[in-house]
Amino acid sequence: MIAVSEALERILGNLTPTGAETVALSEAAGRVLARPLEARLTQPPTDVSAMDGYALRAEDAAVGARLRVVGASPAGHPFEGGVGPGEAVRIFTGGALPPGADAILLQEDATAEDGHVTPTEAPRRGRWIRRAGLDFSAGDTLLPAGRRLTARDIGLAAAANHPWLTVHRRPRVAILATGDEIVLPGEALPPGGIVSSNAHALAALIRAAGAEPLVLPIAGDDREAIAAAAGAAAGCDLIVTTGGASVGEHDLVQAALGPHGFSLDFWKIAIRPGKPLIWGGLRGTPLLGLPGNPVSAVVCAVVFLIPALRRLSGLAAGPVETRHGLLGRALEANDRRQDYIRATLSRDGEGRVVVTPFPMQDSSMLATLARAEALMIRTPHAPAAEAGTPVEFVELSSLGV
Amino acid sequence: MIAVSEALERILGNLTPTGAETVALSEAAGRVLARPLEARLTQPPTDVSAMDGYALRAEDAAVGARLRVVGASPAGHPFEGGVGPGEAVRIFTGGALPPGADAILLQEDATAEDGHVTPTEAPRRGRWIRRAGLDFSAGDTLLPAGRRLTARDIGLAAAANHPWLTVHRRPRVAILATGDEIVLPGEALPPGGIVSSNAHALAALIRAAGAEPLVLPIAGDDREAIAAAAGAAAGCDLIVTTGGASVGEHDLVQAALGPHGFSLDFWKIAIRPGKPLIWGGLRGTPLLGLPGNPVSAVVCAVVFLIPALRRLSGLAAGPVETRHGLLGRALEANDRRQDYIRATLSRDGEGRVVVTPFPMQDSSMLATLARAEALMIRTPHAPAAEAGTPVEFVELSSLGV
Repeated sequence: MIAVSEALERILGNLTPTGAETVALSEAAGRVLARPLEARLTQPPTDVSAMDGYALRAEDAAVGARLRVVGASPAGHPFEGGVGPGEAVRIFTGGALPPGADAILLQEDATAEDGHVTPTEAPRRGRWIRRAGLDFSAGDTLLPAGRRLTARDIGLAAAANHPWLTVHRRPRVAILATGDEIVLPGEALPPGGIVSSNAHALAALIRAAGAEPLVLPIAGDDREAIAAAAGAAAGCDLIVTTGGASVGEHDLVQAALGPHGFSLDFWKIAIRPGKPLIWGGLRGTPLLGLPGNPVSAVVCAVVFLIPALRRLSGLAAGPVETRHGLLGRALEANDRRQDYIRATLSRDGEGRVVVTPFPMQDSSMLATLARAEALMIRTPHAPAAEAGTPVEFVELSSLGV
Repeated sequence: MIAVSEALERILGNLTPTGAETVALSEAAGRVLARPLEARLTQPPTDVSAMDGYALRAEDAAVGARLRVVGASPAGHPFEGGVGPGEAVRIFTGGALPPGADAILLQEDATAEDGHVTPTEAPRRGRWIRRAGLDFSAGDTLLPAGRRLTARDIGLAAAANHPWLTVHRRPRVAILATGDEIVLPGEALPPGGIVSSNAHALAALIRAAGAEPLVLPIAGDDREAIAAAAGAAAGCDLIVTTGGASVGEHDLVQAALGPHGFSLDFWKIAIRPGKPLIWGGLRGTPLLGLPGNPVSAVVCAVVFLIPALRRLSGLAAGPVETRHGLLGRALEANDRRQDYIRATLSRDGEGRVVVTPFPMQDSSMLATLARAEALMIRTPHAPAAEAGTPVEFVELSSLGV
């Protein structure tokens, strides 16, 4: 058995990001930039007003002075002339500061009548003026390569005048569920049969991670069927199998794919749930073999598949992010496997996060997994812990899982 | 000016969830359940083994005893017979427990040869047996209505044998950007022009929230154009305008839409950035008028639009979730507006979250918004605060913004 951290390192070390494609700005949210994004213009392009009021020369604008309003500078329609002594230009938020003006008189600090304006409070030179380039200047790197684009980034890319963006292609991930006992939801269920849930949960997880799932037809516990189905994954960036990775006689994935060019890297990890996990390659395509147990499959997907998808997507590689909280109930000492314990989250009286494990952690309990808000991490050989002990956890909702 | 909490209450009080539609399980991740999801079967359907080993009678399985292996019960292929005295059935994880057996002998606690098995460690009655219904039973409510379906929920719905799910229709949200000064990204930029960024950022935010954006053509600062564009939003669940909500002479949205059946509820909120914000209805369609300033628009979208979209989507209504951290730098006392301060997040030596405001908070700085990880909330009239003071913040990434 190898440690979780070593397994993850070996998985990530074997993967390279997908190539680039060009997509419309309106389709780019959630995608990962393949090149740094540079500003194509300066924003604001010139000095502009931050408020509605009057652009004028501060030295002219003593309280009670009477200035002639010679024009207007609304946003988008710069005043063509300048501001001379004793003059003012009506200006609006975002409007260009006319040449000559060095101050903004707020409209609430002025009385206007008859084409003239009179300060009731003297403006300060430079105040309420946004200088050219305050936000960014042409050529500035606004967003680095390898960044997953947020809604805010889309706004920034738009403001920087990019109708198209260069992003990593979505990784294509084939999902192969194996097992004689599984059937698709809604289909006739034979005695002893179980409805296939892993492929659908994994497809949703893969899509939420920004990749493209390809759900292959279920393969029975039969070498030929598994080999044929895996062959259909050609052109994918990753093959994910589920089932057939335990230590029993029915572990067929390795046996079925070996003759077809499968090379194994490792297949036993000190993790619970999920010890049996295959990592290798099928004729150059990386293959991650998840356990058939639905809870183990999702936990291993959180720990190994999501980082792998991030790496393929062009994001920084590493373990999924964790948070800190306080243990909600006492736990016994751990053995040599790293535990991922289904738990709920709450807040104590002081607003601190409390992480409370479900009392039953049987790995067949999918309803408990769905109800869980967190996977609490217990390192191998962690000692017994009282309620209130600081703990580390993965928050499932923040991963889109 | 009304308080943020009152404004949000009035907005949410005016909205009702969309109707239901039926979607395939494979399309349902991220959607909101419109009806509780009931289990259509019992899982496991019968008592099954949790491990690979041998099903037998505990009383027969003393260390050194020799039991005859009379068959096998792999997952999906129940053994047809039973287990009598002195007998054992080879069993695999998920395999049905044959009648007569009451214990599982782990394969690592046994030696097998010649059609017989001998315990090297005595099994305990009932251990490693998953009872029928351990996960769920037919008729159990597995997921409540109003829940946004996670990848784990999809797995659970599949396991409960649901190929189709009934979810709320995605809210349709029209986005109307107004302003003479704005042009689409990549188009010729006139003097004083600004590239339209709000509509694209909002569309991404709306899509991330599970709704369907409809980006209307930009309307200039002209009553007819605004009225015509807004008319194109018929059939939407919400109209979001951006621009035209400030106190200057160029506030056209209200003026343009008034004659076309617009009724105003309120339009000034004690919030920074973003004081001007319109809430009302256009002939029965709710209308949220966001500020034209891009930072204000996104902040108001986080505070008001996301909760509105959640309400329309059938989720529980309320403010967006906040977290707690420690202030990273001293702040002056606040005035009467509720501040949403762009900030970065880090961890101190003890793992606590530190929230550090950017030194410049000018509302035109979109690059600062993109770089922010959090919006730190300061209540109206909050006193001056030292570094280390507990603070509340909205984490932007957890909202998909």
